[in-house]
Amino acid sequence: MSPVTTRRPPTKGLGDLLLDLLAFPSVTGQEQAIAAWLVERYRTRGEAVRRIGDSVVAGEPRAGLPTVLLVGHTDVVPFASGDGAAHRDGGRIVGRGASDMKAGLAVAMDCFEDPALRAGRFGVLLVAYAREEGPHEDNELGALLDRVDLLRSADLAVVLEPTDLEVQLGCMGALHAELRFGGRAAHSARPWHGENALSKAWPLLRELHERSLTEVEVDGLVYREVLVPTQAGTRNARNVVPDRFDINLNYRFAPDKTLAEATADVGSFVGERAEIRVVDRAPAGRPYRENPLVAAFLAAAGAPIAPKQAWTDVARFSALGVPALNYGPGLTAQAHQAGEYVPEANLATARAALARFLST
Amino acid sequence: MSPVTTRRPPTKGLGDLLLDLLAFPSVTGQEQAIAAWLVERYRTRGEAVRRIGDSVVAGEPRAGLPTVLLVGHTDVVPFASGDGAAHRDGGRIVGRGASDMKAGLAVAMDCFEDPALRAGRFGVLLVAYAREEGPHEDNELGALLDRVDLLRSADLAVVLEPTDLEVQLGCMGALHAELRFGGRAAHSARPWHGENALSKAWPLLRELHERSLTEVEVDGLVYREVLVPTQAGTRNARNVVPDRFDINLNYRFAPDKTLAEATADVGSFVGERAEIRVVDRAPAGRPYRENPLVAAFLAAAGAPIAPKQAWTDVARFSALGVPALNYGPGLTAQAHQAGEYVPEANLATARAALARFLST
Repeated sequence: MSPVTTRRPPTKGLGDLLLDLLAFPSVTGQEQAIAAWLVERYRTRGEAVRRIGDSVVAGEPRAGLPTVLLVGHTDVVPFASGDGAAHRDGGRIVGRGASDMKAGLAVAMDCFEDPALRAGRFGVLLVAYAREEGPHEDNELGALLDRVDLLRSADLAVVLEPTDLEVQLGCMGALHAELRFGGRAAHSARPWHGENALSKAWPLLRELHERSLTEVEVDGLVYREVLVPTQAGTRNARNVVPDRFDINLNYRFAPDKTLAEATADVGSFVGERAEIRVVDRAPAGRPYRENPLVAAFLAAAGAPIAPKQAWTDVARFSALGVPALNYGPGLTAQAHQAGEYVPEANLATARAALARFLST
Repeated sequence: MSPVTTRRPPTKGLGDLLLDLLAFPSVTGQEQAIAAWLVERYRTRGEAVRRIGDSVVAGEPRAGLPTVLLVGHTDVVPFASGDGAAHRDGGRIVGRGASDMKAGLAVAMDCFEDPALRAGRFGVLLVAYAREEGPHEDNELGALLDRVDLLRSADLAVVLEPTDLEVQLGCMGALHAELRFGGRAAHSARPWHGENALSKAWPLLRELHERSLTEVEVDGLVYREVLVPTQAGTRNARNVVPDRFDINLNYRFAPDKTLAEATADVGSFVGERAEIRVVDRAPAGRPYRENPLVAAFLAAAGAPIAPKQAWTDVARFSALGVPALNYGPGLTAQAHQAGEYVPEANLATARAALARFLST
């Protein structure tokens, strides 16, 4: 790994910057203040700044050079009881959003604000967006990508979600299907007059229970496809043979499948056994491992490489043909936990990796 | 069948009496007016009358003679849209509660009011009680049996619920058990970190689905025991491996079992697979077929004999050692139906059968 030179000690400044970010509560839907602070911070520094909703894009492409986006969301999940003001505790920085993902946002900002890195081989833009932790349709990254053309022509997006300092490539697609089993109601004292929609679901539940996960290799990375029943319910009175039983089936599919292919998978699994209604679906993100910039990032970061076994916003970039990867200082196990923290040393490690990529 | 003599034509009077009863809406909880009308009717006639809540007991035991109770509830289920005023329509009497069970109450009253029958071989009491169609704990027959000693020392209770003019002996017991399957929560993208409480229920659902009903012969009558899952549900979010899945299991058991034995049956069926909480239970009613008064009723009625494949209030009498049977003019298929009716001819048939029993 090559040494990195910046004009200030990154660890000290990074921890303080993270504490500044954590001082904004910025629970999903309440990102106005942090957005205004970011706009002011970068206007003052003479950057090009766009604000759309409560999301901010700072910086500009540089003619003739590839564009790299440093991407983070500004919102956090609601505070747990006992969550207090952010603070240092030994080697940790504690606070709601410390790992998910203000640590990543601090690293992105610190690199973006470093003239040496900005003078390197890329045009670097900072993308700080709102509403990631809420419903999918409210996530402002969608609106940003719709409305800011230069994001769609970027050459690489680095999404700094918590990854335990691994480079996590691609992401799983996610689909929810409501399965409705039909039957015929009857008084439960005379069930032979009806057909029980609940108990007739047993073969499907058995297949789901005994099904092993499917390992799918894409670009040399192994993604684990899973088909999981997550909710179920009836709607009849207690003394009635149920004429309806609904199961929510969650399919997490590998990046080699389109949404249409994933939907077809569910259809062929369920067959004629139940009515199927797909209620929510998010595409997978490609790993782009063979992409030259992704390869360069992997070489510079020197970090473990893993497939992303969940959905992240890299899928939005992937859907537009923009290569994207997940890399961040946060701990995945700390995301959404009460007493959330990030090891302060992770900030410096992530910053150094990103700086190597941007400067070498 | 022996001819029956009464002092007025029973069919005409009975139909009019039923229309009088149907003129009170008396939906469960609104039986005040019909109760007051019954009290006034029998006080005027010089009968001994007790009112407890909205329930009425009329008549007295006769020294040295067995006591027979003629039992009916005064309430009806809520009116359906389109239910209008009660009326005759050809050979039918139409109205909310016509079959369930004001037809039975009319027959009971008409017999009770017949001096020839009252002078026969029994002491005859009329029991018109409230709140049968609502929750079990509100049913006023329970309070009546607690507070009116002479009911507990009766020799036979004839419950005039709709039975299609069959004598339906005994009744099934009913028990509801909440089965709770436990698991371990995890993100649904990584189900291998958890244990799915929903899909692990498949073996139990399979056994329930494939289970045939169990025919149990008691006193020469065949009751059909059934174990039916009637409700099910999870409580977690859509992207979570469920750590809990609840099934409501309804057990309808034959009159040869006590509540404790029925509870043990459920326990041995479920075993260690789920936690069991019994949430509602009603004992079965014995058929009492060998009881001399029941045998006399069967001989006098000349009606088809059948087991009662549901729970009725005969179980309350049975639990106190008072022989009881179900016999009434209403149609079971009309109970709780929109446009409920009873064939007017059924009133005369039931009255004649009851009169033969009371007088011969």
